Amino acid sequence: MSNALGKLFTVTSFGESHGPVIGVVIDGCPAGLKICREDIQAELDKRKPAGPGATGRKEKDELEILSGIFDNHTTGAPVALAVKNIDVDSGAYDALAGKPRPGHADYAADIKYGGFADRRGGGRFSGRITAGFVMAGAVAKKLLGYIGVEIWAHTVEIGGVLAQQPDKAATRQLAERNNLRCADYDAAGRMLTAIERAAKAGNSLGGIVEVIAVGVPAGFGEPVFDTLDGVLAQAFFSVPAVKGVEFGAGFGASRLKGSENNDAFTIENGSVRTLTNNAGGINGGISNGMPLIARVAVKPTPSIFIRQNTVDIPRLQPTDIVITGRHDVCIV
Amino acid sequence: MSNALGKLFTVTSFGESHGPVIGVVIDGCPAGLKICREDIQAELDKRKPAGPGATGRKEKDELEILSGIFDNHTTGAPVALAVKNIDVDSGAYDALAGKPRPGHADYAADIKYGGFADRRGGGRFSGRITAGFVMAGAVAKKLLGYIGVEIWAHTVEIGGVLAQQPDKAATRQLAERNNLRCADYDAAGRMLTAIERAAKAGNSLGGIVEVIAVGVPAGFGEPVFDTLDGVLAQAFFSVPAVKGVEFGAGFGASRLKGSENNDAFTIENGSVRTLTNNAGGINGGISNGMPLIARVAVKPTPSIFIRQNTVDIPRLQPTDIVITGRHDVCIV
Amino acid sequence: MSNALGKLFTVTSFGESHGPVIGVVIDGCPAGLKICREDIQAELDKRKPAGPGATGRKEKDELEILSGIFDNHTTGAPVALAVKNIDVDSGAYDALAGKPRPGHADYAADIKYGGFADRRGGGRFSGRITAGFVMAGAVAKKLLGYIGVEIWAHTVEIGGVLAQQPDKAATRQLAERNNLRCADYDAAGRMLTAIERAAKAGNSLGGIVEVIAVGVPAGFGEPVFDTLDGVLAQAFFSVPAVKGVEFGAGFGASRLKGSENNDAFTIENGSVRTLTNNAGGINGGISNGMPLIARVAVKPTPSIFIRQNTVDIPRLQPTDIVITGRHDVCIV
Amino acid sequence: MSNALGKLFTVTSFGESHGPVIGVVIDGCPAGLKICREDIQAELDKRKPAGPGATGRKEKDELEILSGIFDNHTTGAPVALAVKNIDVDSGAYDALAGKPRPGHADYAADIKYGGFADRRGGGRFSGRITAGFVMAGAVAKKLLGYIGVEIWAHTVEIGGVLAQQPDKAATRQLAERNNLRCADYDAAGRMLTAIERAAKAGNSLGGIVEVIAVGVPAGFGEPVFDTLDGVLAQAFFSVPAVKGVEFGAGFGASRLKGSENNDAFTIENGSVRTLTNNAGGINGGISNGMPLIARVAVKPTPSIFIRQNTVDIPRLQPTDIVITGRHDVCIV
Repeated sequence: MSNALGKLFTVTSFGESHGPVIGVVIDGCPAGLKICREDIQAELDKRKPAGPGATGRKEKDELEILSGIFDNHTTGAPVALAVKNIDVDSGAYDALAGKPRPGHADYAADIKYGGFADRRGGGRFSGRITAGFVMAGAVAKKLLGYIGVEIWAHTVEIGGVLAQQPDKAATRQLAERNNLRCADYDAAGRMLTAIERAAKAGNSLGGIVEVIAVGVPAGFGEPVFDTLDGVLAQAFFSVPAVKGVEFGAGFGASRLKGSENNDAFTIENGSVRTLTNNAGGINGGISNGMPLIARVAVKPTPSIFIRQNTVDIPRLQPTDIVITGRHDVCIV
Repeated sequence: MSNALGKLFTVTSFGESHGPVIGVVIDGCPAGLKICREDIQAELDKRKPAGPGATGRKEKDELEILSGIFDNHTTGAPVALAVKNIDVDSGAYDALAGKPRPGHADYAADIKYGGFADRRGGGRFSGRITAGFVMAGAVAKKLLGYIGVEIWAHTVEIGGVLAQQPDKAATRQLAERNNLRCADYDAAGRMLTAIERAAKAGNSLGGIVEVIAVGVPAGFGEPVFDTLDGVLAQAFFSVPAVKGVEFGAGFGASRLKGSENNDAFTIENGSVRTLTNNAGGINGGISNGMPLIARVAVKPTPSIFIRQNTVDIPRLQPTDIVITGRHDVCIV
Repeated sequence: MSNALGKLFTVTSFGESHGPVIGVVIDGCPAGLKICREDIQAELDKRKPAGPGATGRKEKDELEILSGIFDNHTTGAPVALAVKNIDVDSGAYDALAGKPRPGHADYAADIKYGGFADRRGGGRFSGRITAGFVMAGAVAKKLLGYIGVEIWAHTVEIGGVLAQQPDKAATRQLAERNNLRCADYDAAGRMLTAIERAAKAGNSLGGIVEVIAVGVPAGFGEPVFDTLDGVLAQAFFSVPAVKGVEFGAGFGASRLKGSENNDAFTIENGSVRTLTNNAGGINGGISNGMPLIARVAVKPTPSIFIRQNTVDIPRLQPTDIVITGRHDVCIV
Repeated sequence: MSNALGKLFTVTSFGESHGPVIGVVIDGCPAGLKICREDIQAELDKRKPAGPGATGRKEKDELEILSGIFDNHTTGAPVALAVKNIDVDSGAYDALAGKPRPGHADYAADIKYGGFADRRGGGRFSGRITAGFVMAGAVAKKLLGYIGVEIWAHTVEIGGVLAQQPDKAATRQLAERNNLRCADYDAAGRMLTAIERAAKAGNSLGGIVEVIAVGVPAGFGEPVFDTLDGVLAQAFFSVPAVKGVEFGAGFGASRLKGSENNDAFTIENGSVRTLTNNAGGINGGISNGMPLIARVAVKPTPSIFIRQNTVDIPRLQPTDIVITGRHDVCIV
């Protein structure tokens, strides 16, 4: 396991779906940042599953501040935040022991953790883990807000239904107004119908989310390896079910000619801008001052009510001790 | 800049396009790995640009071993490798000073590095930087070979021309036989024609590369943040011009139903396998023992011979000293 | 702040003296490690302050397992552990606002965190923070126990009173029998008298602790920078009040001749050993199979009841926003 | 091996004593830092061994700039620097194969690297490795100079001979004037006599070095784990032969009373200062604005011309493949 992300603002995630809490530690948040519990609670509330096909589990997800915030300001100490797991019914998971569910991480995790992973509720691989990401994100959002960065996301496709988005800037407000966070209400209606139909058949759908950040100053990103796109992609892939990430024109850029894809420079109100934004705000791994645009492909949730094939995986036996590390040698 | 990648096998890249060398330091390669200079030189030779539209620069890229390999075995010390930059003509770049080229990193880098980045030949943002990645990759490949992992890549699309790949396993050999590394010869012919036509018009094309790894044991990957897909995605985005990354069914998975996308388990010759591989070999960020399949979208090279719009960027003046860091405070 | 330690077994500390909890997240502990709450609680109980000169605060320090342990085994998920802060009286600290106490971190922390650090009870700089280290250490100890490593510490000096230790191995048991954890009972008596006398005068004493690890296999430690001595030294300095660290003959080695200091090799029961252990079990930053011996100098606790000089430090005003980072430039 | 140090200014060391070069990569040095080759060469020249008891090997150590400096300014790319190994006579080391030298890292390294470490000239454990540290240090010194930090070191003890240092500030200039870098000329004379006598007998001496930094702003250091003392200690222990590190009153502080050790605050010319500096400029792991004072104990060099006992260590046989990592499991 490797549960820390970020060099200067380091987020360490902890907690399991049916354990006592889901939590997060933020190391590196500057002292003196004004932040109220409502700033964080509001984002937790947005994360709550709802609608057809969503989990039946009901959690209040009330924020607990464990460290690093005092008198509505960060103190410079690590910011530790948690929500309790309360609506937990672990009975069903015993029957699944040793029987990995297709599309889930069960098999891979059983091999990796020798059968010791807490399988209840998906354990560490539950979508519920994202509550920690959301709490950390709420703090990051507050911090970035002070340099004028605004971030939002909206749904651009579900079950093959595409949203129109003639005005990208407008998606920020529009997407808040329905549960699917889709800025195109007409498409949202058809997406909902598709979801309901799939759910009724015990099936599930996937989709595509677009993430937009405006106000990102030019110069963010640390090539050649901690590029802005690279580290964002790593972060996106930590969200369960993500199978693809692209920036700007993305996969579509591979079908453009250089002359079509290159974003010509211009000056607008004294600022350097580009006429198009095929780069999605990133050149050479560094932000260029234009809006940052990423799209994330989410596979259909693997939890379906349709019979599937699986196999039996025995729990590892106590013969396979693996604390080695004594030699750093590979002899050939 | 952040030029190190990997926790246990850490690759640190250095060098600039027109500086003395392009190099790499590998920290964490076990001692005793048998490796000859030919193992590395062969991969460097494959990397050499060739064909229509490629750079006119001719480099021999002869491997220099600076550290960590003795008597054809790794010693446990950092493995430092380099190739010289010889065919260097830096004259043309003076004219470009302060004039960022569309589609290139010039503007973002100028802002980030205050105009001090070595712009000659693209400097740190040149495709030539990948010579370091290739040297490190050659060592990694040798190491992974001893646990049975085999890795290759082939071209699946250029300029909108798609390759057929009825037999994924066969692509390994087939892709070696032409310069475009496309396993479908018929498609390769049409890709070449498209490239030649674009090059003639002073233009360029993009494409999609598929990366395949077989023999990856189940259990690799460190969720929730150092997932196998997440860290590979980060690595892919370090290659200049990459704008999208997907695994298995990727963006296509977002259009499948759960029942279609879930990979049912089965037993084959005593091993756990899945009947399909929409997961691309990764569940929950951990390898599942199936072939690892990734696709990487590459934008058209931004260097074109067609007039484009740009702007003037002045070099920063010595008034903007930025070594602060004294306070870790953000007061609001 | 940088509150994570260790590459493979990463310990992230959180919590403040008068905040809700003191806690720790361990990332990288292998799955399947058998560990009971008693294993950890026993070490927490040993940590409790007691005796003359100790804090009057009484905490039960009952372990709360938040993540990563299920059914008395680690699950592979991050292990998050905490104890509550209950016996908290924060009133006294208001008077100290802006008046840094000599010998404490108050002044340095005020500058660093702009006056936003939670000063109550010492905040993040309280000795109470070590409760997190102890919980993490308890898990590490259990893990190391399975490869035969045993670790203990004993007091070798307090207030200038030196303990005799004719038999180092015996210190393990002997040191458990008194509150000062001194294996020489006669010396322990004199140390206690010295402490009582100092406490009575409102003063405090320092001392030296010796840490011993036996059963450490040869080959641990990662030169040249993550040497075994280097990373242990870094860890030791995270304990408040530590001002010096030495290994084996330590500072004394600088007064020996090479012929006296070199540890000659020999074979004992088929194992390679050294006749002396001036190296303290470490050569070139790597364990050599001999007992690891470190000594740690602890300054007298700065909290005394004697009048001292201080100054006034104003809280930073909201003019000094420090989220820069846009440029990575230092222009000269 | 773990050969990188530092989070924001990361130094990666490479090279072996008898390999082609000794080198270093600095990742994170801001662009635009003015630096000439002489700035670095001057420090390399100071590092050159000289005098009785020093190695007979003569190296010019001419700086080669491989990356990151262009036109006498850093470019923002990694700064890669190297010196060649030329005066290399590797013959003598064959006889030592499998026979670890007492006091050297040979045995520990043989176990760790399975006999594959390049033993010639001490390989990776040679004092010559510090040439890389010095090159990196020269760049760091230049960078720190721009915020007014000045750093130097002087010898305070060799072979039991102590230097007097009535005026710490004066040691900066005084220590430059003799080969032993001792500010007390009278003591330096006696040290030299002691060294000559030991060298004549085929023996060696150790000593203590004091490192001083003035102008360090209050607020540097990242508790609780990346404390200023902790990370400096880790760095010091990377220098071969260091066995102890202390700050300020150090081990001596453990013998003071709180009232003696606490540094009372005062205002001097409008600045907060302390009347004494037992803290060595560090409280709670954070710089307090006073001079930073560290002392480092160096053991006598283990290379002596006196017969010593050793044993035979066979090279590992190709039966012990150690690339595991498939499971993260420890079953008990």
